[in-house]
Amino acid sequence: MAIRIFITGGTFDKEYNELNGQLFFKDTHLQDLLEMGRCKLDTEIRTLMMIDSLEMTKDDRDLIVHQCRHCEENQIVITHGTDTMAETARVIAQEVSDKTIVLTGAMIPIKFGSSDGLFNLGSALAFAQTLPPGVYVAMNGRYFHWNNVRKNTQTGVFEELS
Amino acid sequence: MAIRIFITGGTFDKEYNELNGQLFFKDTHLQDLLEMGRCKLDTEIRTLMMIDSLEMTKDDRDLIVHQCRHCEENQIVITHGTDTMAETARVIAQEVSDKTIVLTGAMIPIKFGSSDGLFNLGSALAFAQTLPPGVYVAMNGRYFHWNNVRKNTQTGVFEELS
Amino acid sequence: MAIRIFITGGTFDKEYNELNGQLFFKDTHLQDLLEMGRCKLDTEIRTLMMIDSLEMTKDDRDLIVHQCRHCEENQIVITHGTDTMAETARVIAQEVSDKTIVLTGAMIPIKFGSSDGLFNLGSALAFAQTLPPGVYVAMNGRYFHWNNVRKNTQTGVFEELS
Amino acid sequence: MAIRIFITGGTFDKEYNELNGQLFFKDTHLQDLLEMGRCKLDTEIRTLMMIDSLEMTKDDRDLIVHQCRHCEENQIVITHGTDTMAETARVIAQEVSDKTIVLTGAMIPIKFGSSDGLFNLGSALAFAQTLPPGVYVAMNGRYFHWNNVRKNTQTGVFEELS
Repeated sequence: MAIRIFITGGTFDKEYNELNGQLFFKDTHLQDLLEMGRCKLDTEIRTLMMIDSLEMTKDDRDLIVHQCRHCEENQIVITHGTDTMAETARVIAQEVSDKTIVLTGAMIPIKFGSSDGLFNLGSALAFAQTLPPGVYVAMNGRYFHWNNVRKNTQTGVFEELS
Repeated sequence: MAIRIFITGGTFDKEYNELNGQLFFKDTHLQDLLEMGRCKLDTEIRTLMMIDSLEMTKDDRDLIVHQCRHCEENQIVITHGTDTMAETARVIAQEVSDKTIVLTGAMIPIKFGSSDGLFNLGSALAFAQTLPPGVYVAMNGRYFHWNNVRKNTQTGVFEELS
Repeated sequence: MAIRIFITGGTFDKEYNELNGQLFFKDTHLQDLLEMGRCKLDTEIRTLMMIDSLEMTKDDRDLIVHQCRHCEENQIVITHGTDTMAETARVIAQEVSDKTIVLTGAMIPIKFGSSDGLFNLGSALAFAQTLPPGVYVAMNGRYFHWNNVRKNTQTGVFEELS
Repeated sequence: MAIRIFITGGTFDKEYNELNGQLFFKDTHLQDLLEMGRCKLDTEIRTLMMIDSLEMTKDDRDLIVHQCRHCEENQIVITHGTDTMAETARVIAQEVSDKTIVLTGAMIPIKFGSSDGLFNLGSALAFAQTLPPGVYVAMNGRYFHWNNVRKNTQTGVFEELS
């Protein structure tokens, strides 16, 4: 069966506005990344929103939960801003338990060239194929259970709570 | 415990010689890729050789087998040219059965910018952490068992034998 | 004689802060660009400031004028933010008339990969070697006299006043 | 009046064939480079051939001369392999004297990401706008008269004969 990919935005998909020097969202770069990676997995991609994860509301997370529960795929990758990735993972875990759901993102926009996004996407798709049902965060080459992960805001690195 | 990474060359690490227009090997780009991916896994990297996999001899493969068997790590990623990746996987599988060994590579040199190498490395490291002991090929976002994989030389894509 | 290069900042040299998602200045990328371009010109590089050109003060411009007047080279390239590039060109032109001075910049940070900075630097260095004494802006592949140029803030393109 | 750009191939436009690991020619990247450089010059682009300059014949050079002489533009940039760039410049100079013709190229294919091609293109277009009629080579940030230039095959750098 296919792997479902949900896109929610985050640093991953930020672009640079030449006219005002601000970072902004336009389209997702996910299809480009899959092509760059010569990915031949059967994937179904759907953009749910395109926002900074600091601006993600309860309604946004309810939508993500709804989509995870009702899509027919059992392996799901979600691209997400890193700042509240752990929080969204927790919300999903409380509502969905029979699927393997992996959240991932990037510290640097894809368009910056040396992005960690391509590396993270490769690992997230691999984890989605091999980990048992549950909700996980895939960052820094590692995977974390939803109930034992945080982003260290000093270093930008994901780590266990204890 | 750390993940062991063995480097053997392949398209992954090819560079462009400005003076004669030929592709050649100099140093591995693996450390650069791990930094680009903000990888925080505990890894031990060792370069075993730096060759085109079409030129890999029985002695070369014996060396790889020896290193896989005798290193203390149980999770191993091997970067390898794609042309004979499946053959090397078979040789290793006949000699080592108690470790998770994942071979990966690239269709485009890292230095070309839009390489699949970063994506493949992310997936190979993830598969090494999650798959049971055995020998695998990780390419195109997928993993293959050593005894059921080949590179389709028409398309450049890895696929099952049957 | 060498070509003098003065660095003042601008989009050219902006970097992405992974921790807070803001663009900021660290070091100049000029030396990297010259190496990328295999530039063999005799150049003398000096960083005068590293600021957004919207924040450039009268004192900053006085410093640039002073450096242009007192350096021993007669061909000068200045990297500068695009927003007030034309204004700085005007200030310099009122004080220095016996040197060929070319201001250039970028619409996209170098670190974004697909920057116009490398192209603009190539053209600015060429114009500095071939144009008669005067103050010029080199952007979009063209050169403009200091008294007949503006950045079109709607399109981001430089154009003549009339 | 527009600047004419003739494309003849060379390292500039080489691509990597994923299936056999060879470098080859497909389409020119010139339009991409002009967009990347936010170039707003009025240019007319025509591909005359797409070959390695070591394989350039007398007939090929005759074609280039013919095109230079008969196009209506007086400012011409020619992208060309570096190995015989100086020879082609000499042939053109013997036949065309009333136009400013600048040959340029790259040491690294554009597709390798860190190419000198974008830098060289910026400088060649600038030299074409500012130098008096004659035939020139623009490489390494410099321009050379057709009768005083060679590629140093040891270093890959262009230099005067004496």
